[in-house]
Amino acid sequence: MTAPSLAVIGGGQLARMMQQPAIALGVDLRLLAEGPDVSAAQVVVDHVVGDYTDLHDLRAVVGDRDVVTFDHEHVPTQHLEALQAEGHAPRPGPHALVFAQDKALMRDRMAEIGAPSPRSARIASVSDLDAFAAAGGGYPVVVKTTRGGYDGKGVWVVDSAADAREAFTSDRELLAEELVDFRRELSAQVARRPSGEVVAYPVVESRQRGGVCAEVVAPAPDLDPALEQQARDLAVRVATELDVTGMLAVELFETVDGRILVNELAMRPHNTGHWSIDGAVTSQFENHLRAVLDLPLGPSTPTAPWAVMVNVLGGSVTDLASARAEALAAVPHAKVHLYGKAVKPGRKVGHVTVTGDDPIQVLADARRAAALLTDG
Amino acid sequence: MTAPSLAVIGGGQLARMMQQPAIALGVDLRLLAEGPDVSAAQVVVDHVVGDYTDLHDLRAVVGDRDVVTFDHEHVPTQHLEALQAEGHAPRPGPHALVFAQDKALMRDRMAEIGAPSPRSARIASVSDLDAFAAAGGGYPVVVKTTRGGYDGKGVWVVDSAADAREAFTSDRELLAEELVDFRRELSAQVARRPSGEVVAYPVVESRQRGGVCAEVVAPAPDLDPALEQQARDLAVRVATELDVTGMLAVELFETVDGRILVNELAMRPHNTGHWSIDGAVTSQFENHLRAVLDLPLGPSTPTAPWAVMVNVLGGSVTDLASARAEALAAVPHAKVHLYGKAVKPGRKVGHVTVTGDDPIQVLADARRAAALLTDG
Repeated sequence: MTAPSLAVIGGGQLARMMQQPAIALGVDLRLLAEGPDVSAAQVVVDHVVGDYTDLHDLRAVVGDRDVVTFDHEHVPTQHLEALQAEGHAPRPGPHALVFAQDKALMRDRMAEIGAPSPRSARIASVSDLDAFAAAGGGYPVVVKTTRGGYDGKGVWVVDSAADAREAFTSDRELLAEELVDFRRELSAQVARRPSGEVVAYPVVESRQRGGVCAEVVAPAPDLDPALEQQARDLAVRVATELDVTGMLAVELFETVDGRILVNELAMRPHNTGHWSIDGAVTSQFENHLRAVLDLPLGPSTPTAPWAVMVNVLGGSVTDLASARAEALAAVPHAKVHLYGKAVKPGRKVGHVTVTGDDPIQVLADARRAAALLTDG
Repeated sequence: MTAPSLAVIGGGQLARMMQQPAIALGVDLRLLAEGPDVSAAQVVVDHVVGDYTDLHDLRAVVGDRDVVTFDHEHVPTQHLEALQAEGHAPRPGPHALVFAQDKALMRDRMAEIGAPSPRSARIASVSDLDAFAAAGGGYPVVVKTTRGGYDGKGVWVVDSAADAREAFTSDRELLAEELVDFRRELSAQVARRPSGEVVAYPVVESRQRGGVCAEVVAPAPDLDPALEQQARDLAVRVATELDVTGMLAVELFETVDGRILVNELAMRPHNTGHWSIDGAVTSQFENHLRAVLDLPLGPSTPTAPWAVMVNVLGGSVTDLASARAEALAAVPHAKVHLYGKAVKPGRKVGHVTVTGDDPIQVLADARRAAALLTDG
């Protein structure tokens, strides 16, 4: 038996953070990067610059690699099927990944496996949208593109069909969804190997601002233990039923009436799991590598009672390396992560994690360090 | 203010492990590697292959970098002084590093600052050696080359002057030292910034086999708290008096009569601190980077009551990547570190760290995982 070799498609911060456990485990990554200076290309020696929508470029980087994994979910399904036919193992496979790529297919599949979900329907016209709204309590309603949305892009909350003009003119397939009356957003992550082994992470609370993850508290404070178990079990079931390999994040609404509903799926390391780098025995990045290489998974056990991760979203600070000194001076125990990206307004350019015993202090410290990297 | 840039001389596993926190902190390393495939060259994009004893090669890699640090202590002092004169900051500086390079100078300096040390003397002849032995309790005596020894190389325990033939024929400057009657070996590590800030790590027990570090237990079990404090204070004092920047390891003998004596100094991340990657809030590699870049230091607080690090020394296992699966299956919570080096008998090719509450179990688990990577 020889150990499988690995290619990673996409050079963002997720691939960059995979490189840290890859160095430890002695896994040589080969990377397809969107440009010579993107986040992961700065730290992976064996990288090729190319276009992940071009099968020739994909073949050039995958080469003789056994396993292919991803920084994002945007590689076309037919290209993954081609690579699979040529003897490579995309993990997750195209049959699973499609449910992270297409929200309408995901909703259908969630219904099939009985996963609690918001009411939803494909819509092709204003009358479809009006009919969907009328079948529930009327407007407001959520309209989403079925493909290509992220971080709040491709999502509209509409008070009438007229509000959905931008959506209808996007020329994309659309999905209407019930606007859920939720208390907060949760995220349940699991790692799953091709052999079926699954490890679930503690369920966390994810706080969004403008559709973008702003901060994550692990574990989710004051979460009903029964609901936490239900969320974990759901994530395990989704991973198993959909045959996901690698990390899966099930983003959830916790409704005001105490239920959980599936919001979105992500089949890769996820922003809501960054806390695990500094706060768990095995980080989501290490377990992603272990899972896609079919290695035994590591425990997700937290190393401290509380971990808070705060994103560094591009602000008025442009010299992050200098601001790093201020952040570390203010909070020496903060774990600062910078992605090697130029600062643009609102862009994810780094994150900070703080762990500890006192949740109030941990949150305050993480916010303080992140603020110094954002607006000084 | 702009953040300082960093070059690293030497492409071994210590430089490789610096790259992990460098990725997190957004520090771009430029590396001088001994060959294209050495351990750190596999994971640092910006590397130059060259000879660290050649000033031209050093200049080529240091270029416009502000700070220079090291994977090892073998860069000639005069080259470091030349780089310093040209406006770069070697950290540690040549005035400090010389005490890690030359054991005779180190002994003189330890005597000056009153650091408890074994009796020692420079020897140039058999009669010097006999006189040194006679001045103590007679033979056995330790003979060392003052420069270039490591991992038990360049060290002889001699029962008579005749036994020292290999030492005398080495054509190197020699030092005779009292053979200390020690209970065990300890290591006290500190990180120190140019601005003077110092952080001390818990004192650990280092267990050698054949002159090579085999395993490390953190913290040192059953260590008298007064002796632990004395060891920490000593390491802080050595770092301060010698103006060390970066990580310093003070390797110590704990004598059977309950004293500590300085054995050796290492001015870089050290094998006795590898446990901190997985067992402390701030690893020795992160604090080395923070220290040499004059960034605020992070806490050395352990994240678990016990951490045990066991070296993977080249054995009968040659396919480490395949053995990795066995080791992780046997001990899923083991943190496996492989250095990307070909297996040769006794060569340090990796290490395993296990953390936990039960020191007996932690030790057994770490040994088991390391054994599977060594002899299957």
